[in-house]
Amino acid sequence: MHYPEPISKLIEGFMKLPGIGPKTAGRLAFYVLKMKEDDVLDLAKALVNAKRNLTYCTVCSNITDHDPCRICKDQSRDQSTICVVQDPKDIIAMERTKEYEGLYHVLHGAISPMDGIGPEDIKITELLKRLEDERVQELILATNPTIEGEATSMYISRLVKPFGLKVTRIAHGLPVGGDLEYADEVTLTKALEGRREL
Amino acid sequence: MHYPEPISKLIEGFMKLPGIGPKTAGRLAFYVLKMKEDDVLDLAKALVNAKRNLTYCTVCSNITDHDPCRICKDQSRDQSTICVVQDPKDIIAMERTKEYEGLYHVLHGAISPMDGIGPEDIKITELLKRLEDERVQELILATNPTIEGEATSMYISRLVKPFGLKVTRIAHGLPVGGDLEYADEVTLTKALEGRREL
Repeated sequence: MHYPEPISKLIEGFMKLPGIGPKTAGRLAFYVLKMKEDDVLDLAKALVNAKRNLTYCTVCSNITDHDPCRICKDQSRDQSTICVVQDPKDIIAMERTKEYEGLYHVLHGAISPMDGIGPEDIKITELLKRLEDERVQELILATNPTIEGEATSMYISRLVKPFGLKVTRIAHGLPVGGDLEYADEVTLTKALEGRREL
Repeated sequence: MHYPEPISKLIEGFMKLPGIGPKTAGRLAFYVLKMKEDDVLDLAKALVNAKRNLTYCTVCSNITDHDPCRICKDQSRDQSTICVVQDPKDIIAMERTKEYEGLYHVLHGAISPMDGIGPEDIKITELLKRLEDERVQELILATNPTIEGEATSMYISRLVKPFGLKVTRIAHGLPVGGDLEYADEVTLTKALEGRREL
């Protein structure tokens, strides 16, 4: 005996999402049956809309519903600085700081030979093209503080040397609110190396 | 700065599902952007279909796409026994045993005064109506082994006394493959009480 077809199809659908196994999918599917019809229709529409109406900004490769994206189109932003991130979600994190007013470039990944991801698999060529614009003066490398992120930053910094730009890497150190006692040695080493005079 | 509207709508939609907070919803939404369009359309369709095409069996209250449901319609099943469960998912669990060949009745909940759920809020009236059928001879109470499940079984067993049926409760005891050492005292007490001669 199986579930009626509409529900097993829904369970199958949920299972295609990351981190959702058969048990969670079943729980979600039964919950849908109890949801208001409007809420279910909204979710279904949102799925189709997100898939169909979102695209990548041809300038910075960020996810957007209008090309070029809001940030690239905003002439009030500082056109001289490009912050390079791995993922569109990283832009949201940067924007939350309300400290950065420049532009972005999304790589959509990091170089990772172990996973077969080389420089040509991420948006580096697109980045180089943007550097031809003479207004660009600084490149902030804000890839993740992981081996892959570091390698990617290193690779890009060497690659753009001929452009004569200022190339910076965001600082590593102790997270604010963290506890020295629990800091791992690599972070602590980086925090020491990056110490500044007060 | 927020996400583009199609993606924030999708995040909102996912957040209406149980156990999905803003972080998971964001992760799911970004994953959807990378999914094959067909898979996304299938999920959207499955959502709408499940909501629109599923209904409750007018006989046993199980979830079904045809009324009466497959089990109620199946004349090869033992029409003399009704197994009372709290939830449609419990029927799947029972069917997996391949041991039970009778009918079911889904209560859609258990009596729980603390949550304001009384006998009139679950499908007890519908159950009593079915007992008027003279073929019914045994009622197996398979509600959950929780306080609410026990109370519901107790309530139903008293209520159906006038019908002169055989009323049974599924056994409590140690789960197969479990370890006596880790069994809680209530389960162990039940297991002792329910001991059988070999």
